Amino acid sequence: MSKRPLKVALLGCGVVGSEVARLMTTTADDLAARVGAPLELAGIAVRRPNRARDLPVDPALFTTDALSLATRPDVDVVIEVIGGIEPARTLLLAALANGASVVTANKALLAEDGATLHAAAEKHGADLYYEAAVAGAIPLLRPLRESLVGDKVKRVLGIVNGTTNFILDRMDSTGAGFADALDEATALGYAEADPTADIEGFDAAAKAAILAGLAFHTKVTAADVYREGITEVTAADVASAREMNSVVKLLAICELDPVGESVTARVHPAMLPRSHPLAGVREAYNAVFVESEAAGRLMFYGPGAGGAPTASAVLGDLVAVCRNKVNGGRAPAVTSYADLRVGGMGEARTRYHISLDVDDKAGVLAQVALVFADHEVSIQTVRQSGRGDDARLVIATHVATDAALAATVESLRALDTVRAVASVMRVEGE
Amino acid sequence: MSKRPLKVALLGCGVVGSEVARLMTTTADDLAARVGAPLELAGIAVRRPNRARDLPVDPALFTTDALSLATRPDVDVVIEVIGGIEPARTLLLAALANGASVVTANKALLAEDGATLHAAAEKHGADLYYEAAVAGAIPLLRPLRESLVGDKVKRVLGIVNGTTNFILDRMDSTGAGFADALDEATALGYAEADPTADIEGFDAAAKAAILAGLAFHTKVTAADVYREGITEVTAADVASAREMNSVVKLLAICELDPVGESVTARVHPAMLPRSHPLAGVREAYNAVFVESEAAGRLMFYGPGAGGAPTASAVLGDLVAVCRNKVNGGRAPAVTSYADLRVGGMGEARTRYHISLDVDDKAGVLAQVALVFADHEVSIQTVRQSGRGDDARLVIATHVATDAALAATVESLRALDTVRAVASVMRVEGE
Ligand SMILES: NC(=O)c1ccc[n+]([C@@H]2O[C@H](COP(=O)([O-])OP(=O)(O)OC[C@H]3O[C@@H](n4cnc5c(N)ncnc54)[C@H](OP(=O)(O)O)[C@@H]3O)[C@@H](O)[C@H]2O)c1
Ligand SMILES: NC(=O)c1ccc[n+]([C@@H]2O[C@H](COP(=O)([O-])OP(=O)(O)OC[C@H]3O[C@@H](n4cnc5c(N)ncnc54)[C@H](OP(=O)(O)O)[C@@H]3O)[C@@H](O)[C@H]2O)c1
Repeated sequence: MSKRPLKVALLGCGVVGSEVARLMTTTADDLAARVGAPLELAGIAVRRPNRARDLPVDPALFTTDALSLATRPDVDVVIEVIGGIEPARTLLLAALANGASVVTANKALLAEDGATLHAAAEKHGADLYYEAAVAGAIPLLRPLRESLVGDKVKRVLGIVNGTTNFILDRMDSTGAGFADALDEATALGYAEADPTADIEGFDAAAKAAILAGLAFHTKVTAADVYREGITEVTAADVASAREMNSVVKLLAICELDPVGESVTARVHPAMLPRSHPLAGVREAYNAVFVESEAAGRLMFYGPGAGGAPTASAVLGDLVAVCRNKVNGGRAPAVTSYADLRVGGMGEARTRYHISLDVDDKAGVLAQVALVFADHEVSIQTVRQSGRGDDARLVIATHVATDAALAATVESLRALDTVRAVASVMRVEGE
Repeated sequence: MSKRPLKVALLGCGVVGSEVARLMTTTADDLAARVGAPLELAGIAVRRPNRARDLPVDPALFTTDALSLATRPDVDVVIEVIGGIEPARTLLLAALANGASVVTANKALLAEDGATLHAAAEKHGADLYYEAAVAGAIPLLRPLRESLVGDKVKRVLGIVNGTTNFILDRMDSTGAGFADALDEATALGYAEADPTADIEGFDAAAKAAILAGLAFHTKVTAADVYREGITEVTAADVASAREMNSVVKLLAICELDPVGESVTARVHPAMLPRSHPLAGVREAYNAVFVESEAAGRLMFYGPGAGGAPTASAVLGDLVAVCRNKVNGGRAPAVTSYADLRVGGMGEARTRYHISLDVDDKAGVLAQVALVFADHEVSIQTVRQSGRGDDARLVIATHVATDAALAATVESLRALDTVRAVASVMRVEGE
């Protein structure tokens, strides 16, 4: 191997970064063979350079001056695993302007401002890869970017947040309520001290924006994504899903409308039939289900987080961008050439599962059915069960826009004979 | 786009080839945008050039002279979807010698003689891609080749034959026997008129060889793969798996031994706990489960066959090799640098689930247990149930070599008190 070494700057050396540094060292020969040139760590930027770190790297590599490292003229590739919007964005734009290729795991930044990064990469002829940003270790973005070209993605359904999947899985398997399941997740290290980003769906929404952008070649940001977390999901919701042979999952859903003119992206809890491949995704695992015109229904499954799994995805990207450096090529640019309109939640097409407590008297069902008809929402099944002087109606609808479904629920609440809307949950994955 | 068009020769225009030709035509603009140059069909080789084909391509493109087409000096890429060993091998070696890159879906050829093709590609600086050869539409080989670099694969477990998965799924869900389930598969078009290649495991064994080669960087051919089909799987086997909360699946299993010095590849029916991600793979779907050191447990799921899904995988490869042609790069070569020893079935480490009909008298269990101990096979659970004057012993072992397990079964057969070995099935996916 006579090629000059490629110099790699590592920005961040926490959970993910330390595993990247370790793997780059322990698998150096393998990486060199794959890339066609040896890789050399040019430096490692951190906040606390003198912190004890049990890593097989030269301590002299650590620096607090991330900007100087990212723009060093001899650096070929910059790996960013600091996280957050700033200083990450400034560092990466400077690195790209300098001609370095970038590998990052930063979902927050990509979801907020991916288009600026992509434009900078394009302008400076550099690569920008971020496999680790969605669903950790799972090779997913590269297949979307490269293997499904020439195919047309119609829908992406993802379990992209391990914390919430762990909580919902516990609620399903033990009957626990949300609070108890969250406590268990925290005790086991699956939830952070402040779990807001996970349980309120912010993390999943960032990933939904990234997935929608790649799947539909359209600029989608986190702000475009409708978001509902899992804090309102009750043990009763999970039990009633169970009765329907379904599970409750927090899904990131990116869809092309039936005529192919607009896309929607949303994150919310939904009932999924147990026969759906995503229903079997347990514990903190992630999985992304893709429906495309030619390839059909694909699913990618694996760990969504963790130092080593995420580092494995970073290394896959590193090899790709380094190979391009050696060969002089570039990855297919991620473009938003389709430039579809991004629709709001009201346009999303879904189904509702509604439980109503109603007066147990003649004519109530007819009255309820009329409300659905008024909103042009068609009912798939109704189950009625008497319970003392009131009755429970459990209604599953056919597909309609979320706006029509939500309006139906509002009108039902206004009916005198409806004592309470006991639960409303969307249903996906027919 | 000022680049000269890339010329693509299509060899074969059957189930897969006709969808390739269709997609190349209908998505021409997208493909050109991804590749950076337009693609042009240079010709289509078939056996019957005058057969009516409902395709949006110029009829003058059809030819029976596949060799001339494959070696035309202006052809950049050759797609082979004829199948079988010859003339496919001769055609592809000629194309590679001519400097053309190759995309093929031909599992039989790759499993028999992949090393020769890889060596020719290497020698002539050409690309050789074959995503469609294993698990049809599922982007799987590229992640193994490219995303998991720098990681170490330890085990691959795959459901890689749709026909047998359909049959076993039916046996599980309806209680049908093998013959009835096969009839149903044939009636529905999931099994061919001569189903031998599928039900005897030949098709899965070819794919196991390809997977093992890629996962372990070692030359593995179909002849190295231990093979058992599903024709001996009975309704009773499936029912007894069901009792253990397991399913029977035909698995392709490629494993590195615990010290990392040798690999084994095998195809056989096995019991898999229902909680395993592969257990939920229904109907004719395929899925491949990969265990690696850093990334952990990944699964790739999707349609394993069909014209459009397979063509989608071919097109993903086509874009990759065309981009390399445009940029002057090459894909990471598939090498067998690790060159591990390929072990026989006796070395494979597995577990057995054994049902014995024994005399219902004192001391029988002790006698049976002694046989296991003699072969150093450790028992995990025993369930004993009396039935008239005999008893049924159902035994699950811990992990041992297949040689030790098989020898144990032989010794059990020789015991006077064992009336019959009612069933033996391997257990995977702890
Ligand atoms: N953890 C996962 O499982 C996972 C999975 C997928 C994606 N990701 C993404 O990967 C990225 C990193 O996550 P992580 O869990 O590894 O984070 P982390 O453990 O908090 O590590 C952050 C690292 O960045 C360094 N750092 C912070 N501010 C800095 C600054 N201004 N200049 C230089 N260095 C700075 C820290 O230095 P000190 O070491 O001195 O504190 C630390 O090494 C995030 O974008 C995250 O979303 C993580
Ligand atoms: N079908 C699937 O779902 C699937 C899935 C994965 C992989 N594959 C693989 O894809 C390949 C093609 O499968 P397929 O199902 O498309 O096969 P197929 O329908 O039998 O088509 C074979 C094609 O090759 C042509 N052909 C046969 N011998 C030829 C020769 N000597 N010279 C030129 N052309 C010749 C045939 O010509 P005529 O049209 O004139 O008969 C036909 O167009 C195989 O390697 C298969 O293993 C198939």
